[in-house]
Amino acid sequence: MTPVYDRVALIGLGLIASSMFWAIKRAGLAAEVTGYARSAETRETARRIGLCDRVCDSAADAVAGADLVVLAVPVGAMGAVAADIAPALKLGATVTDVGSVKRHVIDAVAPHLPEGVHFVPGHPLAGTEHSGPESGFAELFDNRWCLLVPVEGSDDAAVDRLRALWEGIGSNVDVMDADHHDLVLAVTSHAPHLIAYTMVGVADDLRRVTDSEVIKYSAAGFRDFTRIAASDPTMWRDVFLTNKDATLEILGRFTEELFALQRAIRTGDGDMLFDYFTHTRAIRRGIVEAGQDTAAPDFGRVGTSGGAAE
Amino acid sequence: MTPVYDRVALIGLGLIASSMFWAIKRAGLAAEVTGYARSAETRETARRIGLCDRVCDSAADAVAGADLVVLAVPVGAMGAVAADIAPALKLGATVTDVGSVKRHVIDAVAPHLPEGVHFVPGHPLAGTEHSGPESGFAELFDNRWCLLVPVEGSDDAAVDRLRALWEGIGSNVDVMDADHHDLVLAVTSHAPHLIAYTMVGVADDLRRVTDSEVIKYSAAGFRDFTRIAASDPTMWRDVFLTNKDATLEILGRFTEELFALQRAIRTGDGDMLFDYFTHTRAIRRGIVEAGQDTAAPDFGRVGTSGGAAE
Repeated sequence: MTPVYDRVALIGLGLIASSMFWAIKRAGLAAEVTGYARSAETRETARRIGLCDRVCDSAADAVAGADLVVLAVPVGAMGAVAADIAPALKLGATVTDVGSVKRHVIDAVAPHLPEGVHFVPGHPLAGTEHSGPESGFAELFDNRWCLLVPVEGSDDAAVDRLRALWEGIGSNVDVMDADHHDLVLAVTSHAPHLIAYTMVGVADDLRRVTDSEVIKYSAAGFRDFTRIAASDPTMWRDVFLTNKDATLEILGRFTEELFALQRAIRTGDGDMLFDYFTHTRAIRRGIVEAGQDTAAPDFGRVGTSGGAAE
Repeated sequence: MTPVYDRVALIGLGLIASSMFWAIKRAGLAAEVTGYARSAETRETARRIGLCDRVCDSAADAVAGADLVVLAVPVGAMGAVAADIAPALKLGATVTDVGSVKRHVIDAVAPHLPEGVHFVPGHPLAGTEHSGPESGFAELFDNRWCLLVPVEGSDDAAVDRLRALWEGIGSNVDVMDADHHDLVLAVTSHAPHLIAYTMVGVADDLRRVTDSEVIKYSAAGFRDFTRIAASDPTMWRDVFLTNKDATLEILGRFTEELFALQRAIRTGDGDMLFDYFTHTRAIRRGIVEAGQDTAAPDFGRVGTSGGAAE
């Protein structure tokens, strides 16, 4: 494949950036990929495993001469990183990000970027419960969606080029408005994560049910919650703090609905429960048909092998 | 392997019973396995795919002469089935069940069983989101836990023999008291299922987020909830109605905790969120170490193949 960019700089070397690197290399989408991470230990690990063609000791060095700069740090750190790299950005370069919240990132990053630099925020909807430079693998984005969220004045050519990169990486690409993105993600990701964290916290806290019982007998449903609740704490703290309104709105709706179902249990309204559970089954079918999961039964993935092990 | 029972009767031919059949055959644990399902269509399917050595047209025929009778019907149907088969049970036979709630099943089944028949309730902690006679596979119970819940006066030899069957099927076996079972399962299974059903219901109900968006962008966390919320509606209605007190208690604790986290989001208490999310990560590590899930990253299981497809 012809490279889409001559040089790509990855700022932050966690799960998403490291997976992007391997996917970019797999498809030959850039002549050179530089990388930077704040932690010296992460930079050392990256050098050891060959993550990035060149690992730099400062963000400014990494972005110098880059045609595309990818901000892959927690949402709460985006503004400071943008301020840090701004003086070193090449004229005509595109800056994008991979944050799970878009309105906050736009407000935090855009003011720092100099005239003549394109800003095209993005969000690949992919991940695992692992994090760090060694957790990445090239297949992470295959057949997943990447949402591009152009800001006012985003250059069409810059958007098209970034789209070509993500398609080369294996993703499907959609364009969406920032506020709508933040609401959709509150439903499909942010609220579910908070709920999973909560349920795992409750289980851990119960005195009459020992930790070891919760762990031993987790295969009955709880296990899936623990996987979600094992996601990176810094990333998720920032998501909830920066997508506050939409997340609280969805959680409010969730609580209302949960109370209605609790009431049906308390009053013994079996018909209401049966109808509700029958209806939710249809959504699952839609997801399998849309290729976003398989119909193969999940019984713990024992014996399956993932793309990369931690 | 020497057969553990001469004849086993499976009443109800869904995911659990059909998986038991294939696992019993895999290990040669019974000389003959008979089966019965209320629906003529299910019996027809069972005959077509070779599920059970003999499919009977009445529950009484299936249990006649059986050394072990397995009640594998929804919890709410256990009492009626027990009444139906009671006159046909062989003296010295053991009756067990696979229901997710134990106190209710004991109260519903025990009064119907004649003198000289052993009752040893059980609950294999295994499943997938699929149901029906074609969803079973021999590996379902491998390395999973099966909880036996002997009642007052349960015969030790009958318990040991049933334990040998489940171990031959591939499970680890623990013995537990009925009320403790129902509380542990409320935490590890019943409350998580109700929460997943609720979240999927909320997502479906939102007017500003279309169904197709929820489905397209489900990979971000929501997808795991939809898998749980695709479980059999009849089975789950009965679970909630028959384990009402423990489920409502755990949901009450869950709501209290959720409100505390919502408050932290609203007030911007990032430290509280970070500490909470760091703590829940440890539980996940415990589950992986206990062999109840793999550390392989989950990114949708695309490309993996399960033991059986729907």
